[in-house]
Amino acid sequence: MNADIPSFREASGRLLPLIEKSLTDAVAFPGIPETTLIRAMRYALLLPGKRLRPLLVLLACEACGGFSAKALPAACAVEMVHAFSLIHDDLPCMDDDDLRRGKPTNHTVFGEAQALLAGDALLALAFRTLAEHLPQGIASSCVHELAQASLAMAGGQSLDMEGFGDNPPRGEIEGMERKKTGALITAALEMGGIVAEASQEHLAALREYGWRIGLAFQIMDDLLDVEGSQEDTGKRVGKDAEKGKRTLPAIIGVERSRKRAEQLIEEACSALEIFQSGSTMLLSLANFIEVP
Amino acid sequence: MNADIPSFREASGRLLPLIEKSLTDAVAFPGIPETTLIRAMRYALLLPGKRLRPLLVLLACEACGGFSAKALPAACAVEMVHAFSLIHDDLPCMDDDDLRRGKPTNHTVFGEAQALLAGDALLALAFRTLAEHLPQGIASSCVHELAQASLAMAGGQSLDMEGFGDNPPRGEIEGMERKKTGALITAALEMGGIVAEASQEHLAALREYGWRIGLAFQIMDDLLDVEGSQEDTGKRVGKDAEKGKRTLPAIIGVERSRKRAEQLIEEACSALEIFQSGSTMLLSLANFIEVP
Repeated sequence: MNADIPSFREASGRLLPLIEKSLTDAVAFPGIPETTLIRAMRYALLLPGKRLRPLLVLLACEACGGFSAKALPAACAVEMVHAFSLIHDDLPCMDDDDLRRGKPTNHTVFGEAQALLAGDALLALAFRTLAEHLPQGIASSCVHELAQASLAMAGGQSLDMEGFGDNPPRGEIEGMERKKTGALITAALEMGGIVAEASQEHLAALREYGWRIGLAFQIMDDLLDVEGSQEDTGKRVGKDAEKGKRTLPAIIGVERSRKRAEQLIEEACSALEIFQSGSTMLLSLANFIEVP
Repeated sequence: MNADIPSFREASGRLLPLIEKSLTDAVAFPGIPETTLIRAMRYALLLPGKRLRPLLVLLACEACGGFSAKALPAACAVEMVHAFSLIHDDLPCMDDDDLRRGKPTNHTVFGEAQALLAGDALLALAFRTLAEHLPQGIASSCVHELAQASLAMAGGQSLDMEGFGDNPPRGEIEGMERKKTGALITAALEMGGIVAEASQEHLAALREYGWRIGLAFQIMDDLLDVEGSQEDTGKRVGKDAEKGKRTLPAIIGVERSRKRAEQLIEEACSALEIFQSGSTMLLSLANFIEVP
């Protein structure tokens, strides 16, 4: 990697405090009585995390020449949708996980009913945040992107829960994972572009980049479940194999999966070529994906 | 009731076919492969029902001088949020109901995981529908109303699940029910007004009318659970008492609840006085609430 490229760590050092403050403010609800629901929403949204998706919103906005502070409402909305999906995915009727980022999952702390409702409320809050804090035309476009991504995520999770036959083709698994993980990452990038009033050409490039790094991240996550430890990942490992989940490493093996992730990252970076400058952080981010 | 007032039944006879067609189209997803998730969403949204909330959107739009066909996307979005809330409320970790409108509930047919996801997907689809089919400024305002109502519904359901002390004041129960039922009914009316580009004064009147008929409907529903039969209501009756739920009839008794509902309906109708004409259907609707 070129040493001149400002590192993703530097960008995140600059942007993460803004994101954390906006997220904290978004679930402060001043003047509203504290309830279990609010505590469950706050627990989910403020659980320490990498904030990858909100960072992508801000970096895409900057790559398209926009002022990243204007994209903070979109960044928060994307993280709310992410938090909603994690709560629901962890529920007993879904993946039944008791650890998330090294902490007890939402339903373990607040019970199933409150966790389910906290997920619903975070999804609603995401859309309210867009409508409340963005100019109307931009808000409407961002609502469309985020709603479309939320629909795709439900579709991907639905396919994953149903399972696959014995030897599903790679494309079928990738299609499911593009929905489950890729759709929100792509929407994050596009929403950053929309706030910056980017051209159709730039939005298309962000989409091409988005689904590829989304899929690369998913493969990395699946490889960690095979090869990582609970201390590294903050959640139980080996669960996919235990449940017979059809991940890419399970279908095509660890070595070919690693190669596929590297290929996707390379293609993702190529998609950014039209940006000339300004997309260096996104390039750096792609290279930041540490394929294990 | 004045015999000159066109009956709510006539209005619904005219508008219901438009609503049913729009709802059917909204979950047709042409060109997209049929999945369990799509079947579960369609089952929930197209379950025969009174379509009270979409009718309120269209009637409020007409009351404010708007063309009701333009409000169909908002009407569909409101019904999607209603369908989402019914699926989640019926889940085993919530009210654990197996019958809804005389049919097996969503999770009984499709399993808990798919039902949960179908609810999530309908909530997302509601916002996509607004962003896709309404002019941007109107879409953004409607998204704000609908998101706010969805948040309130989760808040109301959360309070309901937590339960109340032994002798909660009437206001506490009414506050919870204004969130659980009143918020979406009020949002439906406001969204109809927003599509018609109504004045702030008219929107305020719709809100005053809305929460009152919402609460009146809820009391009626609770009275039916006490006094109705499964054949009348299409769901199991007597469940509230069985679960020790703190409904208004349980707190202040059947007779006082009936009087409270009548008072609310009267006040709701008074709130419509500023409309001069055009709100006759809404008046008729309020009188259509048959207090048992």
